Amino acid sequence: MVWKGEQETFHIPLATFESPLWPSTARGAKISRLTNGIHVAVGDERMARSILLEAPSAMEALATMQHILQNTAIIRDAVNATTRHGRFCDVHGQVAGHLLYLRIEMQTGDAAGHNMVTAAAEAALQAICKQFPHLKYGSLSANMCTDKKNAAINGLLGRGHYTIAEIRIPAEICRQHLRTTPARLAKLNQQKNWVGSMLAGSVRSANAHVANILLAAYLATGQDAANIVEGSQAFTLAEEQEDDLLFSLTLPNLIVGTVGNGKHLPFVEENLMRLGCRQTRPNGENATRLAAMIGAATLCSELSLLAALTNPDELMRTHRKLERKQP
Amino acid sequence: MVWKGEQETFHIPLATFESPLWPSTARGAKISRLTNGIHVAVGDERMARSILLEAPSAMEALATMQHILQNTAIIRDAVNATTRHGRFCDVHGQVAGHLLYLRIEMQTGDAAGHNMVTAAAEAALQAICKQFPHLKYGSLSANMCTDKKNAAINGLLGRGHYTIAEIRIPAEICRQHLRTTPARLAKLNQQKNWVGSMLAGSVRSANAHVANILLAAYLATGQDAANIVEGSQAFTLAEEQEDDLLFSLTLPNLIVGTVGNGKHLPFVEENLMRLGCRQTRPNGENATRLAAMIGAATLCSELSLLAALTNPDELMRTHRKLERKQP
Amino acid sequence: MVWKGEQETFHIPLATFESPLWPSTARGAKISRLTNGIHVAVGDERMARSILLEAPSAMEALATMQHILQNTAIIRDAVNATTRHGRFCDVHGQVAGHLLYLRIEMQTGDAAGHNMVTAAAEAALQAICKQFPHLKYGSLSANMCTDKKNAAINGLLGRGHYTIAEIRIPAEICRQHLRTTPARLAKLNQQKNWVGSMLAGSVRSANAHVANILLAAYLATGQDAANIVEGSQAFTLAEEQEDDLLFSLTLPNLIVGTVGNGKHLPFVEENLMRLGCRQTRPNGENATRLAAMIGAATLCSELSLLAALTNPDELMRTHRKLERKQP
Amino acid sequence: MVWKGEQETFHIPLATFESPLWPSTARGAKISRLTNGIHVAVGDERMARSILLEAPSAMEALATMQHILQNTAIIRDAVNATTRHGRFCDVHGQVAGHLLYLRIEMQTGDAAGHNMVTAAAEAALQAICKQFPHLKYGSLSANMCTDKKNAAINGLLGRGHYTIAEIRIPAEICRQHLRTTPARLAKLNQQKNWVGSMLAGSVRSANAHVANILLAAYLATGQDAANIVEGSQAFTLAEEQEDDLLFSLTLPNLIVGTVGNGKHLPFVEENLMRLGCRQTRPNGENATRLAAMIGAATLCSELSLLAALTNPDELMRTHRKLERKQP
Repeated sequence: MVWKGEQETFHIPLATFESPLWPSTARGAKISRLTNGIHVAVGDERMARSILLEAPSAMEALATMQHILQNTAIIRDAVNATTRHGRFCDVHGQVAGHLLYLRIEMQTGDAAGHNMVTAAAEAALQAICKQFPHLKYGSLSANMCTDKKNAAINGLLGRGHYTIAEIRIPAEICRQHLRTTPARLAKLNQQKNWVGSMLAGSVRSANAHVANILLAAYLATGQDAANIVEGSQAFTLAEEQEDDLLFSLTLPNLIVGTVGNGKHLPFVEENLMRLGCRQTRPNGENATRLAAMIGAATLCSELSLLAALTNPDELMRTHRKLERKQP
Repeated sequence: MVWKGEQETFHIPLATFESPLWPSTARGAKISRLTNGIHVAVGDERMARSILLEAPSAMEALATMQHILQNTAIIRDAVNATTRHGRFCDVHGQVAGHLLYLRIEMQTGDAAGHNMVTAAAEAALQAICKQFPHLKYGSLSANMCTDKKNAAINGLLGRGHYTIAEIRIPAEICRQHLRTTPARLAKLNQQKNWVGSMLAGSVRSANAHVANILLAAYLATGQDAANIVEGSQAFTLAEEQEDDLLFSLTLPNLIVGTVGNGKHLPFVEENLMRLGCRQTRPNGENATRLAAMIGAATLCSELSLLAALTNPDELMRTHRKLERKQP
Repeated sequence: MVWKGEQETFHIPLATFESPLWPSTARGAKISRLTNGIHVAVGDERMARSILLEAPSAMEALATMQHILQNTAIIRDAVNATTRHGRFCDVHGQVAGHLLYLRIEMQTGDAAGHNMVTAAAEAALQAICKQFPHLKYGSLSANMCTDKKNAAINGLLGRGHYTIAEIRIPAEICRQHLRTTPARLAKLNQQKNWVGSMLAGSVRSANAHVANILLAAYLATGQDAANIVEGSQAFTLAEEQEDDLLFSLTLPNLIVGTVGNGKHLPFVEENLMRLGCRQTRPNGENATRLAAMIGAATLCSELSLLAALTNPDELMRTHRKLERKQP
Repeated sequence: MVWKGEQETFHIPLATFESPLWPSTARGAKISRLTNGIHVAVGDERMARSILLEAPSAMEALATMQHILQNTAIIRDAVNATTRHGRFCDVHGQVAGHLLYLRIEMQTGDAAGHNMVTAAAEAALQAICKQFPHLKYGSLSANMCTDKKNAAINGLLGRGHYTIAEIRIPAEICRQHLRTTPARLAKLNQQKNWVGSMLAGSVRSANAHVANILLAAYLATGQDAANIVEGSQAFTLAEEQEDDLLFSLTLPNLIVGTVGNGKHLPFVEENLMRLGCRQTRPNGENATRLAAMIGAATLCSELSLLAALTNPDELMRTHRKLERKQP
């Protein structure tokens, strides 16, 4: 699904000790108001939990996996019986020797879905063990989920909301409001976020400081903020196109919910309310809306920081100015 | 330096929405009191910032890097002039084509050191550009730092406190208090944390849920919690040795501070005070103490979760029991 | 498909300068004759090529990808029209900003399929550009294939023959013929292949020297040996089970062919003939047979090296002995 | 050391079944003759082997590592006593729990050095076990070497010849001889080699087909061709600068030798002779020369392929034309 909100302006709450994040995000937001705005697309939503089963042999592990992947009803039915709020969506498998890993995926509506998918995985595990008595329980959670650890699998198979935020900025606005040019920003992005990350041995991660804004937005909206680990695996693109800068941020693993643990705290309720994420909508649309908003806010701050870094002395000078202003 | 605290007992504050983390950590802590306790070693402390310079050619980029790595005084002096609280400790380099990346590393005492190292990197960058006029400014931060993104470089070259927590648990205590055996826990750890993570395409990460406890401890002690991204790249080992379980958690990138942003909030001050991390000690020892304590607490919860996962139905049953108790 | 050959014994040709590989593989092969043999399962076969398209915006890139993934006929038909020997099997997509990557996958019968899939990808690219005029050609090959570079994607989505070889070895045979025990070998495998590889920052790779045997077998059977890069991403498991060692090698990306470039050289023809891989069989079964055989041979050498490494001085002593024997 | 050969022209032998590699490399070579040529810098040379030791506890593993890293004489002396052709150069360490990994690095002159470093590692291991009786032998090779498996560590700490080849090409020559422009080639390189590889979950690898040329050159010059696994972890940069294309290939792990296994075969001797790599020079300079030459040849083919891919139908059309010409 591509999320297409009406055009609107909103204020995102950011809870952080790193106070320069506020003016940085605000600068990006200002650019969005001076242009055609930030367009956000949310392309997929799922939560995953992987289970582990032990077979007597590799041959049996592989044969059973193939059987299950061709007959997913056993997992689907077990999963769907555990909840009214989510539903089974897919299962992927891997076999290493006699070990069988199954990654169970479901749509979890407005909930981030950690507990929902664990309960569903437990039911699936029991159903499998019952139907295939040659398999033994291995683990209810087997790190191919992958929860709160970096991994390539999440971006490739999906976990959370696949969110892309994009803005087109005329060169003149780059110059006036970001003190840079499309060409300089594109070059810095390539050399820092792509070459630098690759040299560092990063896996599926090419951005400047996505984790900062995710953390601040997660804390302000009652999310399980440990999911910034996956969330930080995001991609910043900056391309000069004719006289514009096309700038985007792709967040393949943005995990958010508007119901569940932490959402009943008064400040969380208030923040979600203000963001319009507590309205009566089809199940899942409040969470999708929140993902889109956090995606847009993260783009703002990413843009502002990268623009600042194109100038040799801007970043620290601004930091110092901000610190002097503080009490 | 190996940190050797006196033997002591402490209460770690954990700020989290995921309430099962409290009894889980407490169960691990109980095991530590029933045995010889958790031993923690902190082996290295540094904060890093990478800068980027552009040379006219690959030949010149490489020659300049080699010159700088053999004559580090230029960086050392620039770095040390920016602060009284930290000091230059090392510099590493990489050249890709005509691009020169320098990773500047310093010891930052009781501060986590993000701002300190950025200011130092700016000074080093200016000194280099002045001495090598053929080099052009590229970026003050170039993703080989690597800050709040996953990367292999941090664990290999150092970032934060290299912290190892370890406990030896007799089989009898495993059985009575963790409802498992050393052999079963060792096997689950291998199949879940190592094989599962490798299959998922994780880079330098093999643990169950380190990010959860790091986040909770970071929030309670005023840390920049976005550093759980690096912090989550940790290694859990479980080995059966004769009749014991040798269980350890290695956290190569545990970034903590006891001074700096966020540390003056009343609840943070109180928590740091209670942990004994606000005492008059040589610069750096309060932070090292905090790293050791967080390392020990994280081991407790990691141990408890893995033990629970060795039993097919324990995890969800316990979760449900805890949830029913809540208002 | 699980490959179930009749039980048979074969000689694998290995072309290598590293002569200790011969006795090492032979030692493993001897173990296989003393036990119930090596069982090999081949679970999936596909070749992949990724194409790149540029959309005017992220929104359009995502919407087009979703349309194509739900209507794969356009790609299927284009692919299937290019060849009688292969057939379309699946397509996966990724969007980063306005860039659309499509990974086209096909079964290629007895051919490794590099050229077949490139021709098919070209046809698919043209069909897509024609049907979606807002998309522009990006690249006919876009590194998500991933050909001859390491990547997590190949093992997760499939490339080449997914091959698992396994053997069960009684402890007594371990002691007599491998000078080790199941427990010692399992421990070394864990500490070297899993912990060591993870510390090194390896992605989806945990084995000792799979690349060596793959290269030798590839050169002897006329393969494109540059595919050892993906092939080397393999997993060695060793587990003590009661009084046995269960030892397996999982090769998710074993790329082989029995027809195509290089297969008409006389020595290749002879080697393939001897291996029974030039017989009249349904298209694809000769290649599957070859994959199984190479998988078994690689397990032999992996087993022998790991056993040798459990003893402090065995490896170099054996090397020296072998070298003295040479002219 | 930066290698500065006299300006010279040479013919590189390439042994491959993929015959389009010859005209592809030749096209790149032609460009080099029309411009100021390819400049190659070789910046570091070392071979590494990692050993594993088991300590009674994490505390002791860490303390011993720190002692050894501060007193490297024990390793240096043991290493240097094993050979007259190489010498100790550095040691790096990692501790995970009670496991101590030491990566021993040495310069190996004109030999690739696999056997030399294994013999040296064995001697170091024995010396360490003797001096630190609380440590037990773990493994003579522990995957942090990292030999013939992908890993981030090799590029960060060094393995093989760190080789960078670079060429500056005027736009006019791009147009006439590569049928492309600097801007188009730079864009394709970014989108394919960097974004595509990152999406695929590649670790420290961003190039099109380096493994192909490495394999062909390795086979023709008697190398252990399994080292293309590390060698393939290479970086292609393409940047438009004013009216030129600055194009480079960085190969951090190019492992080559001009003496040792395989070098006495007549065709190898002849090829090395023709390349001028069998002359009387200080130990190591023949191998460095060979690394530089292979680096230059690999750049040629990388350039040609990328240029072809900028045009929608060039690659397959050329392939088909070449195939028709073949018997």
